[in-house]
Amino acid sequence: MAKAKEAEKPDNTVYIGKKPTMNYVLAVATQANSGVNEIVIKARGKSISKAVDVAEIVRNRFVQDLNVDDIKITTEVLEGEEGRESNVSSIEIFLKK
Amino acid sequence: MAKAKEAEKPDNTVYIGKKPTMNYVLAVATQANSGVNEIVIKARGKSISKAVDVAEIVRNRFVQDLNVDDIKITTEVLEGEEGRESNVSSIEIFLKK
Repeated sequence: MAKAKEAEKPDNTVYIGKKPTMNYVLAVATQANSGVNEIVIKARGKSISKAVDVAEIVRNRFVQDLNVDDIKITTEVLEGEEGRESNVSSIEIFLKK
Repeated sequence: MAKAKEAEKPDNTVYIGKKPTMNYVLAVATQANSGVNEIVIKARGKSISKAVDVAEIVRNRFVQDLNVDDIKITTEVLEGEEGRESNVSSIEIFLKK
């Protein structure tokens, strides 16, 4: 389901990393104002808090008609260099106009 | 709606703070195994990532029949000592058997 969505609209996902929060706010707001009606914010580990900040700041300050459509949390298994596996939580915040 | 829920079941909320993740995992798992069918995990700011970790660890390792029923994000306004207001994001993860 999520995969099919991604195949149709590959450019509507914003991945949250180590840059300042406002960089991602700008990325999401720009997409929302360029006619994209569904935007997905994705983050893993400690960036999850920043993802929530980004969604909230965009909605409250920049694109008031954007709503949280769904939020999914899951666990991803990352494989380290020596084959060791580690679990990391991830979040997907689905925003919709 | 959320308030009414809280009034009925005041003890099913686990607030995530600065303690180690496993403390909160244990708190949630203990509640789930003591007959509570709905548990809410709440966190603000940087603790949001830890809240997601707690939900995922409980579900994957300790209480397999616990599911994420809903996730809400919102912005809370905190008033500082000098009357300055600051915004902080918060999350509520609703778990249900």
